[in-house]
This record gives sequence, C-alpha cells and structure tokens, in this order.
Amino acid sequence: MLEHDSVRAIEWVDDKLRLLDQRRLPSEVVYLDCADTQSAAGAISAMVVRGAPAIGITAAYAVVLAAGAHYRNHPSSWKRRIETDLAELARARPTAVNLGWALQRMKGVLASVEGAPEQALLAEARLIHEEDIAANRTMATIGAAELKGTAVLTHCNTGSLATGGYGTALGVVRSAFAAGNITHVYANETRPWLQGARLTAWELVRDGIPVSVLCDGAAASLMSQGKIGWVLVGADRIAANGDVANKIGTYGLAIHARHHGLKFMVVAPSSTVDMSVPSGKDIPIETRDPEEVLSCQGHRITAQGANAWNPAFDVTPAELVDLIVTEKGKIENPTAEAMRQHMEPDR
Amino acid sequence: MLEHDSVRAIEWVDDKLRLLDQRRLPSEVVYLDCADTQSAAGAISAMVVRGAPAIGITAAYAVVLAAGAHYRNHPSSWKRRIETDLAELARARPTAVNLGWALQRMKGVLASVEGAPEQALLAEARLIHEEDIAANRTMATIGAAELKGTAVLTHCNTGSLATGGYGTALGVVRSAFAAGNITHVYANETRPWLQGARLTAWELVRDGIPVSVLCDGAAASLMSQGKIGWVLVGADRIAANGDVANKIGTYGLAIHARHHGLKFMVVAPSSTVDMSVPSGKDIPIETRDPEEVLSCQGHRITAQGANAWNPAFDVTPAELVDLIVTEKGKIENPTAEAMRQHMEPDR
Repeated sequence: MLEHDSVRAIEWVDDKLRLLDQRRLPSEVVYLDCADTQSAAGAISAMVVRGAPAIGITAAYAVVLAAGAHYRNHPSSWKRRIETDLAELARARPTAVNLGWALQRMKGVLASVEGAPEQALLAEARLIHEEDIAANRTMATIGAAELKGTAVLTHCNTGSLATGGYGTALGVVRSAFAAGNITHVYANETRPWLQGARLTAWELVRDGIPVSVLCDGAAASLMSQGKIGWVLVGADRIAANGDVANKIGTYGLAIHARHHGLKFMVVAPSSTVDMSVPSGKDIPIETRDPEEVLSCQGHRITAQGANAWNPAFDVTPAELVDLIVTEKGKIENPTAEAMRQHMEPDR
Repeated sequence: MLEHDSVRAIEWVDDKLRLLDQRRLPSEVVYLDCADTQSAAGAISAMVVRGAPAIGITAAYAVVLAAGAHYRNHPSSWKRRIETDLAELARARPTAVNLGWALQRMKGVLASVEGAPEQALLAEARLIHEEDIAANRTMATIGAAELKGTAVLTHCNTGSLATGGYGTALGVVRSAFAAGNITHVYANETRPWLQGARLTAWELVRDGIPVSVLCDGAAASLMSQGKIGWVLVGADRIAANGDVANKIGTYGLAIHARHHGLKFMVVAPSSTVDMSVPSGKDIPIETRDPEEVLSCQGHRITAQGANAWNPAFDVTPAELVDLIVTEKGKIENPTAEAMRQHMEPDR
C-alpha cells in the first residue's frame, strides 16, 4: 500500500529545533532553526508552525532548548529559571490545548530529572512526537473505515504540517485514499491564512492525492450538488461536552453538512480533549490582527478606514458533530457522558 | 438627511462609455473609456464592471456605440449588422438576467428608430440608467423600514458600483444608516474577487458608513454571537418561484441565517426577476477560470498541480428567503404565486 506520506514539518537536528516555515509555503520550502525558547515561542505566535498537535510538539522541543541553556548557565537554579520560559511558551497561542498539554508532560520529567536534563527531556519530546504520529495512524484507520467511495471536503490544514506527521483529518484522507475509499479531496482555501490553498493542496499534490481547492463561500454549493459524502476537520480544543473549537469556518461547515444530510467528522488526538472545560463557551478564542483580513498574502486588499473582525477559531456545538475520532476510538453523536467514558484513564 | 451616496461607476462622457475599473479598486481609482461594443463586452467579461444592474446599464450604452458606428458606415444595413454586436454583448456573462433585459429594451427602440439612431438609443440607455437609480431609492426606502437598531451582514458588492448608483442591498444600508436604523455594517470579503473587501468597504468608508470586513468563513460565528439582525444581499437572477441566483457564498449565508433565526433579505430591481425561468435549477451558473481561486489578487497561492472549483454564483432556494424587495414592493416568504402576483404588469 502506498503511503502518500512524505512531509515532516518539525525535526530535531544538531541540538536545534528545525521548523518548516509554513508562512512561505507553497512558493518556498524554507526551514527555520530555533536555538532558544524565544525563537520557538515566536515561531508559534507568528504561525511559522501551526496546527494544534504541531505546536504542542514544538513547545516540547523548546523546553529541551530552555533546560539546556539554563542548566549550562545556572546548574543549581535552572529549574526555577525555566519557569519564565514555560510561561512564555504557554502564552504563545491561547486556543489549542495541546500546547499546555505538551508542557505539562515536559514538566513531569522536569520535576524528576537530576543532573544534566537535556537527554531525559529530549527523550520525552521525541516520545510526544512519535506518539502523535502513532495516534494519527490509529485515527486514520478508524476514520478511513467510515468513508466509502466518496469525495470529502476538508478545512484548514490537518496534515503532516499540522501534526508530528501524517495528520489528523488529512491522515484519515491519506489512509482512505490508499485504501481506495475516496478518490478526491475538496479543500476549502481557509482565509485569512489560506492554510487549505497553501498547505493542504501542497501536501496532497506532493503525496499524489487529487485535490480541488474552493473558496470558503462555495462549500454550501458543493454540498448541494452531491459532490461529497463527508466533511472532515481537525480540532484545536474539544470541551468535555463534545463542543469543538477549530479554525474559523468550521462551525459554518457543520451547519451546512447537517442542512444537506452529510456527515461531519472531527479527528483529533485525545491530547486535544480538555475535560477541564465544560463546554465550548469556556474555550478562549484567539482574535488575531485585523491586518490578516484587510490584506491577502501581504497585499492590502481593503480601503484605508475599514475595520476587520478576525477571530481565528469558532466553536461547533457537539450536536452538529456526527463523529469524533481519537486514537482511543470513535464517539458517535458526542455528549458529555460519551466524552467522559471515552476519556476514562483505563481506555 | 445625509445622502451617504457619492460614487458612480458608469458614465456617458464625450460620446463614450466611461467605466470605473473595479478590478483596480481600492488601490487605484482608474477609469476605462469604451468606444465600441468589443471593449464594452470585454469590460463586462473581465469584470471591469460587475453587478447585475450595472452590466445591464453598460450593455445599454454599448448598444448606442454599436449603432452609431454601424449607421455611419452602413446607413442602409446597420440594423442587420448590429445583430452580431447584440449577440456578443448578450454572451459577455451568462448568469445575470439584467444584461438580456437591458438588451431587449434597447432592441425595442432599435426596431422603431428611423434615420440616425444614436439620439433615441442614448435616451433609452439614459432612461434605463435613471430608472435603475430610482428603483434603488424606492427599494432602499422599503428595505430600510424593516431594519431596526441592528447591525447587518452583507455579501459581495451591491452598491453604487454594482448598479446605476446608490445600490440594491447597499442602497437599503445607505438609507437605513441615514435614518439611524442601523449603525454598523459587516461585509463578507467575498472570495475569489473580494468584492466585499475591495469594493463594499471602499464605498462605505467613502460615504461615512462604519464597516467591518470579515472572512467569508467567519459569518456563521458572527451570527452565533448575536452581532447582527439581518443578512442583506442582491441578486443576479430571481426565478419565477423565488429562487435566487447570487454571488457564490449567498446560499451558505441563507442557511446560516435560518439556523440562527436571523432574517434574510434579497434586494433587486424587477429587471432581475426572470419569470421565464421556473426555478433556480434552470438558471445558468457561470463557472470561471480556476486561476481566480488558485491566486489572490494576481499572486499564486496554491501549489502547482492543484485544481480549483470556481462557480461564480449559487442558488438560494426561495424557502430560505424571508423577504424579496423590488421597486414594486416587498414579497414575504416568496412562492411562485407571490412572485406571479408581484410581477403582474399592472402593479
């Protein structure tokens, strides 16, 4: 079976964190090396790296950089000094819970490590990274089994670029295409950052999966024409009741899918589920610079004097979600009770 | 009462048709003079001028240019020779019915004119233009009375730039703002041509009406937050059953409005109603060059090898429309019967 899986956006190379600069895709394939926390946190804020799982993995590697530097300079007080770095990383973006989740895992190792910390921390960061890819492959198998001989619509980028590798919703796409369960992918361009047009199309073309890009406003028309069977998206945070925060535009797609009797699948590792947040109303939604909307790819498109409203995410209520897939399995018609059972530690 | 109305995109100047080049707004305010049918038809196809009423008016003036040239060169056979020009104009864009409607009116004058035809044809073109502005003012009064102390969302551009002047849905906005019935306008950017970001924002800023641009994918989130009371759009063709063809993205907005219990108003002159077309299924929908989606403002945004799906319009079924406003009055919950009554000749 062909893998249709050739892209990796995050690597640990020569004691540094190497990130594929996603702001410059697809026109340029350029890597950015981060040697300290500040550059890693900056890369997360500026969206050099984006995608909930990917920013968690990036933050984990950034902790290795921070610990190494502080230990070399202050071997007795480094555990206190690193707190500032952990806080800076946690603040880099507010909506995706994977960032805080990954930092918690790294703090667990930090607490117990003695002597030079880098080796133990790097091992944990690598484990987080490998577990993410493994989770993606598990989710892909579960999700792909639901898709039968149909085209799908996806939003934003949920592929290798958004994760440790392989992807969440795009992982399902990769596996379903390899198995012959789907033959075509429609990708919403996903303004303002155009992750669909720039990143999803680039990944899928590279990996030999046929893709058609459409403007976000055309999705309802696509659905009305019977061209697709499923809508597949990722998530930045899933609340305890199954509400899903994801890239702006996701909520509208869920309404459209329900209106047309199509199925709506959310694919995300269990690290994206935040059981401490009762519902979507409690998820912090990042509002970004209006310039991202007033411009397109750095070119101003609107008149001076116009404002813009630029929420980066929206919340899809659980009742519009047909299926959530995590590496633990699938949740049909998610509810608070179903989420609780799914997230039980012994599963 | 302030007019909030300063823009005109179509003028007859020095025996030529002068068009504001809408492809270059808002960064440049440049006019294009058309001296013959070919340049006018080209301007319609290339979207120098766009908006259903505006392309009808443009075509009417283009007939004056065609008739003048043919009469000068072939005074005895000009009425036969002009047929090619009329056909070229009719083909310039397929979805908006106002183009064919305006050409029909000009043909009525053509059939009866004797001797030099320009004066009579120019008078008819000017009448079409003036009647359009008058219709917009009438519709604005009817529509504005529905809006009470709320913000509204609009899509594409339906203002002075899209019409003879004042606008359809934006005419309602102008009048409602002047009357204090609304205080703010949200404008979908409307990819791929960005008519909302480029044109609606430019018009409204110029005329002192506060406007916030949002990405098309953010509209559902805006509605869920209770920020708006009405969605206002124009139309390119309204079928005999009340189905509405309009800029791609309109159908999705209508679904969202209904989902959130918000009202959806279509504002269009009766020249946009095509009683010969039973339903939206019978309206030809223009599919445009994929490059419009694969690029943004001339800059390639997607990987080579990706395709794009680029329908320029979609169809909103009548059952999702709460109100159609024409210069003849308003139609609540449009049906075939209500449309028939509304369009009766004696009204």
